[in-house]
Parts: sequence; C-alpha cells; structure tokens
Amino acid sequence: MSGNTFGTIFKVTTFGESHGKALGAIIDGCPPNIELNEAIIQKELDKRKPGQSKFVTQRKENDVVEILSGTFEGKTTGTPIGLVIRNEDQKTKDYENIKDKFRPGHADITYQDKYGIRDYRGGGRASARETAMRVAGGAIAKQVMNSLGIKVRGGVVQVGDIKASNIDFEEVNPFNFLDSDKVSSLEEFFSELNKAQDSIGAKILVNITGMPSGIGSPVFSKLDGELARALMSVNAVKAVEIGSGCNVVTMRGSENRDKINKSGFESNNSGGMLGGISNGDEINIYASLKPTSSISQKTKTLDMNKDEVDLQVKGRHDPCVGLRATPILEAMASMCILDQILIDRGQCFNVQRNFKD
Amino acid sequence: MSGNTFGTIFKVTTFGESHGKALGAIIDGCPPNIELNEAIIQKELDKRKPGQSKFVTQRKENDVVEILSGTFEGKTTGTPIGLVIRNEDQKTKDYENIKDKFRPGHADITYQDKYGIRDYRGGGRASARETAMRVAGGAIAKQVMNSLGIKVRGGVVQVGDIKASNIDFEEVNPFNFLDSDKVSSLEEFFSELNKAQDSIGAKILVNITGMPSGIGSPVFSKLDGELARALMSVNAVKAVEIGSGCNVVTMRGSENRDKINKSGFESNNSGGMLGGISNGDEINIYASLKPTSSISQKTKTLDMNKDEVDLQVKGRHDPCVGLRATPILEAMASMCILDQILIDRGQCFNVQRNFKD
Amino acid sequence: MSGNTFGTIFKVTTFGESHGKALGAIIDGCPPNIELNEAIIQKELDKRKPGQSKFVTQRKENDVVEILSGTFEGKTTGTPIGLVIRNEDQKTKDYENIKDKFRPGHADITYQDKYGIRDYRGGGRASARETAMRVAGGAIAKQVMNSLGIKVRGGVVQVGDIKASNIDFEEVNPFNFLDSDKVSSLEEFFSELNKAQDSIGAKILVNITGMPSGIGSPVFSKLDGELARALMSVNAVKAVEIGSGCNVVTMRGSENRDKINKSGFESNNSGGMLGGISNGDEINIYASLKPTSSISQKTKTLDMNKDEVDLQVKGRHDPCVGLRATPILEAMASMCILDQILIDRGQCFNVQRNFKD
Amino acid sequence: MSGNTFGTIFKVTTFGESHGKALGAIIDGCPPNIELNEAIIQKELDKRKPGQSKFVTQRKENDVVEILSGTFEGKTTGTPIGLVIRNEDQKTKDYENIKDKFRPGHADITYQDKYGIRDYRGGGRASARETAMRVAGGAIAKQVMNSLGIKVRGGVVQVGDIKASNIDFEEVNPFNFLDSDKVSSLEEFFSELNKAQDSIGAKILVNITGMPSGIGSPVFSKLDGELARALMSVNAVKAVEIGSGCNVVTMRGSENRDKINKSGFESNNSGGMLGGISNGDEINIYASLKPTSSISQKTKTLDMNKDEVDLQVKGRHDPCVGLRATPILEAMASMCILDQILIDRGQCFNVQRNFKD
Repeated sequence: MSGNTFGTIFKVTTFGESHGKALGAIIDGCPPNIELNEAIIQKELDKRKPGQSKFVTQRKENDVVEILSGTFEGKTTGTPIGLVIRNEDQKTKDYENIKDKFRPGHADITYQDKYGIRDYRGGGRASARETAMRVAGGAIAKQVMNSLGIKVRGGVVQVGDIKASNIDFEEVNPFNFLDSDKVSSLEEFFSELNKAQDSIGAKILVNITGMPSGIGSPVFSKLDGELARALMSVNAVKAVEIGSGCNVVTMRGSENRDKINKSGFESNNSGGMLGGISNGDEINIYASLKPTSSISQKTKTLDMNKDEVDLQVKGRHDPCVGLRATPILEAMASMCILDQILIDRGQCFNVQRNFKD
Repeated sequence: MSGNTFGTIFKVTTFGESHGKALGAIIDGCPPNIELNEAIIQKELDKRKPGQSKFVTQRKENDVVEILSGTFEGKTTGTPIGLVIRNEDQKTKDYENIKDKFRPGHADITYQDKYGIRDYRGGGRASARETAMRVAGGAIAKQVMNSLGIKVRGGVVQVGDIKASNIDFEEVNPFNFLDSDKVSSLEEFFSELNKAQDSIGAKILVNITGMPSGIGSPVFSKLDGELARALMSVNAVKAVEIGSGCNVVTMRGSENRDKINKSGFESNNSGGMLGGISNGDEINIYASLKPTSSISQKTKTLDMNKDEVDLQVKGRHDPCVGLRATPILEAMASMCILDQILIDRGQCFNVQRNFKD
Repeated sequence: MSGNTFGTIFKVTTFGESHGKALGAIIDGCPPNIELNEAIIQKELDKRKPGQSKFVTQRKENDVVEILSGTFEGKTTGTPIGLVIRNEDQKTKDYENIKDKFRPGHADITYQDKYGIRDYRGGGRASARETAMRVAGGAIAKQVMNSLGIKVRGGVVQVGDIKASNIDFEEVNPFNFLDSDKVSSLEEFFSELNKAQDSIGAKILVNITGMPSGIGSPVFSKLDGELARALMSVNAVKAVEIGSGCNVVTMRGSENRDKINKSGFESNNSGGMLGGISNGDEINIYASLKPTSSISQKTKTLDMNKDEVDLQVKGRHDPCVGLRATPILEAMASMCILDQILIDRGQCFNVQRNFKD
Repeated sequence: MSGNTFGTIFKVTTFGESHGKALGAIIDGCPPNIELNEAIIQKELDKRKPGQSKFVTQRKENDVVEILSGTFEGKTTGTPIGLVIRNEDQKTKDYENIKDKFRPGHADITYQDKYGIRDYRGGGRASARETAMRVAGGAIAKQVMNSLGIKVRGGVVQVGDIKASNIDFEEVNPFNFLDSDKVSSLEEFFSELNKAQDSIGAKILVNITGMPSGIGSPVFSKLDGELARALMSVNAVKAVEIGSGCNVVTMRGSENRDKINKSGFESNNSGGMLGGISNGDEINIYASLKPTSSISQKTKTLDMNKDEVDLQVKGRHDPCVGLRATPILEAMASMCILDQILIDRGQCFNVQRNFKD
C-alpha cells in the first residue's frame, strides 16, 4: 500500500535508507521446514555487491546479513523471518552538496513533493541500496522453490547496441552478459563510455524453468501483470516484456500463437503463460533499464527554492546499472512466482499440481 | 488475490463469463458526492463495442449497463456501486466444436489445468468480453478524476510496421489510430491481412495530463509498476513501456535524464514519474498487444485426452484486437491512477497536492 | 478497506441498499469443482426470512437469489460467483418521515457525517437487509466446508433474563432458541414486550464441529480475533466471546487451562483455539445483540439542521433482532473459517491437515 | 494474512521469538513530518515492563528500542520505520523441561500441529514477549493521534470479583486498577492467590476521546469489528465488548438507544459508534483476559509422542496477565483507530472531518 511490502502470502516488507543505521526486512508467510541459514542468503547478496569489476562502482559495501528470527535449528518455522544489514560505508559528506539540489533523473524532487521532507543522504530510501533486501527476500524464495524443482536464472542480453546472440546462463563474465563472444566489444564500449563520462542502458532476461502449469490467476492478477509489476518496481526499469514482448506488434497470429503437440508447445512466444496462467513451458521476461542518471557531466537543475543552479554529482556510480541488476530481478521474479504458487495452493488446494520435485 | 479485484481503496471486483447470464462489477471505495448515472458509464462502454467498422468483429454486443446500488439522486453515496450487463448475443453452438479442444494461443488449456474444470463456451471467463466491466469501472474512475482536472486519453500508435508519426489525440478514424495520415496505408494493409486469414499485433499509447506531483509510492509499489500491472493484465498485452520504454537500452545518461528548469522538465524520457512517484509532467505508457490467436487458418492442437487433433476456429474475430483496446487500457490506467491518488490522500493527508481543479 | 469485502482468499464483496434496485455479491476465490446451485443458497436465505412467526417482523421479503456466473453444469469453476437478489417490497413512503431526522440508535447520523450524503430510504446500506448477501456467501462457504466434514450450527441462548439450560442444536421453535423448555416463558415475555412497545437484546451461540487443528494464524490474525471481527461486523452485535468468554475474568488458572489427555481436552474453556490456532476441539463463539432501536415509542432527536424534533418511527420491526440473527452469524463464521483454511493451505501446503472427510 | 501484519495504510509488521536474537517491527505508511524519536517509544515500552511490583513477574526485561530507519532530524519521513529490540534475559535452561511437553492453555500443541516444527524456548513466537512490538507500534500511532487531538487511555476495571466503581484514568497503582478504593482488597486477594499457586482473570477498559464522527467503514469493516479484532488478537483475551457490551442482552430498546439532543448523545450504550462509524462520542471497549495458564501447580499433559506425562511449569509468571495488559491494549486500539482515520482520508478526502486539533 505505502509501497514497502511485496506479496500476499509470501510477504516481504523492507526498510532502510542509503545512509541510515541499517537495512532490514521481514519475510512473513514462508512455508515451514525449509532449510535456511545466513550463508544461503549471503551467497545471493554477494552477487549484487559492487566493486567486482572495474566497470561497476568501486564503492565498498560489505553487506553482512543477520537472521534475527523465524528459523530454529537451521529450518524455517513458519513465523516471520527478521533480517538486518548494518550500514557501514557511509560517506555522508559526498552528498552534502546535493542537500538542497534536485538531481535530474533522480527521485529527490518527487520525494520532497510527496512527503514535504526527505532524507537527502545518498538518495535516502530511493537509493538502489534498498535492493539488497529484495535480494535477501529472493534468496529465501529461491530456497523454497528449489524444494519444488523450480529454477530462476538471468543475465544481461543487451547493452546499448550490443546484443547477445547465443544465450548461455552458465556464462560468467564481469558484465553478467549471457553471450561471451561479446565481452571484448563490451570492454571496448565501456572504455569509450568512461572517457565520455556517460552511462548506458541495458536489457536483462530472467528465465524460469520447472514451472508446473496452473500457476497465476485470471483477469486482474494475470501472471504476466504480476511479474511486470515485480520487475518494473526495480529502480531504473522502464519496460517489461513477456515472451516475444514488443515484437508481437509486428507479428502475425499464424506465427505468434504457439502450437501444441504431444511434446508440448512448438514455440514460446507467450513466454510461458496463457490467459495469465502458467502453461508449463519456460517463463521468459525482459526488463529494460535506463542509463545511470548520476554521471560526472555538469548539468543545470533546480534547488529547494525552485531556483536554477549548477550541479555536478560526485561520488562513485556505475556506468551501467543494468550490469548489477540481474540478482535483483531474479529475486523479484522468485518472490512473485513463489507467492503465486502459495496463492494457488490456497484456492485450488483440491487440484493437484505437477511440481518437478 | 484470486484475480478478480483491482485496487485497494478504489476497488473494482468483476464477474462474468462470455456466455453466462451476465457480466457485473462492484466498485467499492468510490468517493462520495460525485455525479454518476448510467449514461456516463454507457458512453465509455459504447467506445468498446464491436461492429463499428468493417475491420473489427461484426459480433453484435448491445451491452446495456444498469446501476443497482451506490448512487442516490444522481450522485455517488460512498457505498458500493453494483453494476450489471445482461448477456444477449450467446451463439453457444459456434463454440461446441472447441468443447474438447485447446485453441492455441488461448487460455483453454491453462484454465483446465488450473481448476480441473472450465466453462468452454466462448472462452468463459478468459474471453475479452470480461473487459466490458473494466471499462465500466474506468468510466467511474474517470468521472472522479475529471473533478480533479485529470484527463486520460489514448490510441493506437503502431500496427505491424505502420507507425504514427504525428500524434493527435483528437483524431477519429475506424482504426483508433492517432495519426490520420496513415489511414489509407492501414486500409490497404488490413485488406491484405483479411485475405491471408491472418491477424496482427498493435501498440497503444495511454496519456495522462493534469497529474499533480507526489502520487505513487516508493519501492515495491512504484507508479511505474502499478501501471505496468494494470495494463499487462489486459488480454493480449505482452509488453508495457513507461516513457522512453525499451529505447532506454540504447540511450546514454546525458540524454536520458530529463533536465529541470523553472518551466519544468526539458524532456520526458521518464514518462512522468521519478522513483515511482509522479513528477507533475504528462504520463505516457505504451502497451504492445499480440495478434489475435483465433484466425480462420487450420492448425493442429491437443484435445482433452491430450491427443493431437485438427482444429479450425470458427466465429467472428477481430484481425487486430489492438484496434478496440484503447478504451480498456484507458480504463485500467484511470482506475490505477485514481486508486494511487486515494492511497496518497490516506498516508499523506497532511501534505497538500496541487490538483488542477 | 471501504468495508464491503470480507476475506482474503475466499473473498465476498457485497452491494445493495434496503430500497435500491437489488442486493448482490461477488464470491471470488471459491475452490473449484464444488457442487453449487441456486437451491442450495436459497435454502439458507429462507432461514433468514422475516414473517416466520408472530414474534418477528411481518414484512414480506420474498428474496429470490440468482447465480449470474462462476458455476458450470452445477459445479463451481473457480471463477467469481456473481449473485443478485432483486428488491421487491419497497414501501418507500413509510420512511419519508425520517428523511430529515436521525433515528436514535441508527446509523443515519454517522452515514450523513461520513459521506455528506445518504440514501435515507429504509436505512440504505445500513439496513439489516444487507445481511441477506452475507447469508448467501455463507451458504457457499458451508457447501465447501461440508466437503471437508466441518459443520456450523447455532441458535439463541439468551433473551433478556431467559437463558438456555440444555442446549440442543436440533431444536426447532419460532424463537430459534436452543432450549425448548423455555419456549412458554419466551411467549409470555414477548407478549408483555409487545404491549410495552419495546424491544430486547439476545445472545447467540455459534458452534463449529469437525475442525482440524492447525487453522488460524498467530499474533495479529489469531482465529479468535478473526471470528470476533466477523461476528462483530453484524448489525446490532456489541460483544463477542470465545469459549468461556467474559467468565474468564472470575476464573482461576487451575480451572481455566484445559487439561490434555490421550482422548483430547478435558474441558473447552478456550473455545477450541490456543494461541489463535484451532486445537481440534469444538469452536464456540457467542455474540450479544442489542435490542432493536426502532420501537414505536416516541422520542426526541435531531434533524438535518441539528435542531431538536419529535420522532416516531413507523414501519414493521422485530422486537428482538437476535431471533433472526442465527443464520447471519453462522454465515459469518463459515466464511471466516473457510478463508482461514484456504490461507493455511497456502502457507503450509507442505503440512498435512486432518480433515474429517 | 500469515498474521504478523496489522493495518492497511498504517501498517505494522512484527517479528521475533521470546528467546531469539531480537524482536523487531516495520511501521509502514506513517504520515510524514510527525515528531518521533526513541525516547517517545521507550516511554510506552517502559509501561509494559515486568518487575514493577511484587504482583507481576520478576523477570527482568530491560527492553531498549532502536530506530533503524524512517526518521530524519527527529521527524518521520513517510518511509518505513524499522525498529529493533535485542533480547537479553534469555534463561533458555528454564524451558528445557518443556521441550517435548505441551503446556495446557498454551500454544505449544497448536504451533506444533500447524507448522510441524516449533521454537519451544519460552513459547517462541507465541510468548507475550511479542507484544513489546505492538506497544512500540502503538506509541507511534499515539504520536500521530496526539497531533489530531485524540487521546487513548485505559486500565484494569475488574479482577476476579473485585470491580472498579469510580473510574479515574489518572489513577496510578501497582495493579493499574482504575479505582484506588479497591487497592487494599486487591493486595489481600493476590496474597491469597500466590499462596494457592494460582492465577486470575481480569477485565480492561480502553477509552478514546477526541474522536471526530465519520471514522470507520460500514458492513464488514465496522469500527466495532475492527477494534474487536485488534483487542482479541492480544494473548489471553477471550471476550471484547463495545459500550454496554454483554449487558445489551438484558436491556430494552427504550433504554439502550442513545437519545440525541443539541448537546450530543444523552447516554453512551453504543460505545461511541453507530452502524460501525464513530459518532463523535467517547469510545469505550472492554477486553476480558483469561488467567495465566503457567502456574506452579502440577498437572498432567501430553508429550510429543502423544503419551501422557506429568508437567510442572517452572519460571517466573504473572499471577494475572491482565495487570500488565493495559499498554498493549491501548497500543492495539491506537493502531486500529489511526489506520481507520487514514483509510477515511483516502476514500472521503473530499469530506471535512472535525479533528480537535
């Protein structure tokens, strides 16, 4: 409602500002008897960490998560799981010069308008730092889904004009790019970009396998819409596509409708859902992220008195926020899908589902 | 939860199958003392009606809405508004041949899997007929928003490869296309399409003016995400873009971040929201709709026994569902935005908003 | 939120004013494949009908319910069930004299204050007529619970100082009183009451058998609290007690704590729940209903100008609303319990429950 | 849903087991620009502390609350407020002997049944220790309500057969009893009770002044029901009464309906609400709490193998949990009322309310 809770049965509520005392979350509605400990969550959090290559921000965030409740002897108990990460690397001075200025492309001006007050330090609640707790919640969702044979993976498939041709989810490179043949092009491109003191957008693919058919609800809560909301809620995402996405505009029905035979669907333009309900095929979702707004180039903007002023944003920023977004988007998809599974088990408890495990 | 309710304060719940007795809705949480009568709703419903040109389905749906509660002497009373439309044109026989067959691209198979039972007549609840009640709910939302000076408009901006160049919301043509210069190209294109017994996708723009800044919530309920969910929940929508949408992937930060000066924002790549909160600029959202799956071309598919069978879908279908989708998408955006306004008035009742009226 | 929806998975939303066109409801989230038809709902509705004895109102309400959606070939499909009852017996003139006067003990004044407008005819939405749709929703909930071996029963256990000593749920008498030995005392009492042009309060017991243990949630959504809210939402209810209820104030712990042995609990002071979760024992809840406020005795009150005026309420009213409240309270308990069962199946889908059937 | 969230706009989610690492809460949807700091919350928490007289448990809980987010320069920012209290006094050994035994009157058996796993230490999540975070959330709600001129007070009005005659909310005594004339009777009674190694129930009154009329929603979300649920969710509460409560059963309509004149209502049997909406009068709610189940007397019970065993509960327990319940019940009422105020400001933002400040 006020925006800090995600989900209805598997319900994740988060708090925390960029430069406040801590980030935290409560995960309520987690099924009981699922193996869980801090290492499992930490592993996902570490994927999101900055400073892992020279193409991402060199800010050091040594996020250490602590489980405060909801587990007993290494298993979930069904009671709420409290999580906290204490903030460490708080260079508040870096942000003093933007105390009274609204950074273009940022939420400074809209938070001020909405609440009549804002914690300007590091962007406060609007900082991408908030996403750490999404990843933590997603780690728990993934753990439950593992027990059901469902796997969520993802990676970057486009940066500027550079597109992945051969997608390989096992690919490991500093760009989280799913096609290793493009790594040298990317290196070249980012060198040029850094010189230009500029940033670039990116497109991420999230892929889900092992889904039974029958998950999702019709009409207003179609699985398509729930996933779109989940991913679009991540900072910088400005478009979400399911399956063939925007390409459907130029497709014909004869091509787009996925034919069915005994082995399953002959194609997957639908992205794994029909009428808002999973059809048992792989789910594919794409998120388009805008380029980082905080670049070193000077700009003009307004201050708190609505007077025009010069602004140069200092600090350490990613030239492409998309490069670090994969674990966040995977987390959102995981929380969304798990919640839909539990909702389905509620209403349709008397219908069998074909989970792989 | 089970998918048939939209919104939290302004809450619209709908029911009804394509070939059942009636469609209906309850609109709860509507502000009191707003002028409302059946003619106001009917006007919006009539925009959605089929049979308005030779390029849309010739099915005759003479939908007449009746208000059953919630108004008194021409005004809303704050109590729930009950609406009903009796179904008339029920050619059930047309659909008998698909009773045991799953139409490709349709929800037949997923409804059967989810519930273990389905009303196969005309697609049941998964039929686009369900959207009539979205339009009715949207008509009421628009009525409240009018009183606040907010206007929601839209239209088709792309069909196949034909794109609108000069957008004019006052444009009236049988394609609901926002650029009249393309009408002759569209006529030619659809003639060819009909001969090929095929269908085509489309892209729709929804535009909102008069929005105050400060509407929407941070983190999981960003206005971007709420709108994405609202539009993605409409049948056939497979992608939603806010502002520059997918184009952000190839944009640089220096270009994408909308600069602010005393007159407002110098560009609108953000689509009217920053950090998930409206910034006072126009809101622009795009929905990409897949081509109609029900075309006359024969295909193979599965039957209820999961055996392969031939299928030819009969009946009257739109070659481009997008052509009639504008009022539905406007309705979804209207209900979404109004709900967000009321949510904001709840938490931030002690902060002033600049409504135009 | 705005008050007209009950439940989260099994979700009932209602509309309708006393003298409007119709009453209606949407039941969303009903499990599929449950036998349902109009006769099943009508049977419960008929229990609530006025005019069944000389001690209840002689108003004739021939409520006929129509199912508009959500069933197919006699079974629920999992899609929303639309219900409607057309209003017939609308003697609007009877209420014209209270158009501008606030009846003491009624919601006239609070509706006017809340919304700044009200449908004064027959009390509008605040009329007990609204409860017909609760009974309809409850009939569907009961139908699902029957399939799980759970039975909900109830009756009057106290009217004024007359208390039931030997409770028998099979008892049938015009007072719905659970102890037939008190019928002659009740007849005598009501004769005196009618002469005095006055009304009286009552206490109702709702009893639930066949409950598995493990239903309900801890902390804020304890089963006790959910049931209390469900019953307290019924017109005229001013107190709800679980198990030993108010009597716990004078009880000692040694007596109150229900001992457990191999056969189960040795007593049932808890009313069938511990820590907000069902313990497998019978559930007992009591609701205390205030006496009807609309009596023939003259009174003073305020009018719309907040001036003092004389008021004599005409029309046909029950001397004891409690006598007809049993089916309504049973319905509320049924919807509440079923919803909790489905919520439990959501989060704890991986834990077995011992349903009787 | 899973029980650990209270409220819809002003939404409080809590976590924490009796003997876990910490208790915590997230308060989302708090209006911005309200003065808040740790001392304000701590003051309310200290009222709940054990060890304040010889008649309550001598367990030492030095609960120190820390605000982790959501305030800036001493004011709320509208973003979620994260709270944490580290657990200190964890005598886990005291509870080792009940590891495999179900204490009568406690939730041990129902948690085990529901989740198939439980944290037995000190009752885990079912411990009354959980209520600390209710008090913390209530302290914030009170702070907002103070700014609107609304005051929430309460106290004990009955213990066993000892009833308060003259209620004085300013009364301070070790029993939190609202009538000081009864203190010596209470001292005598508790001496006897301690000798008997037994416990006793109690009734608490919560009183709210300064309420504007028009708060609350009709039908399923009547203010009566919302308050009943709020209070009934507190450990040990088995009955909730509004206004004249259970006494309405023996009252006549002529006496019960509160007459209205120019000065307001002539009596307050309704407890300050009509049709579920506040009428501007004082709100009075009563909660009946059962006697502590953990007494020193030996008893028989079942163990994890469902075999009968002897049980003697050790540890330090209150002979009357009601004595310390007032701040918890005040907190629940405060959170409930504030949430209803914000909900009203949402739907009825266009209707004026008469707040006292």
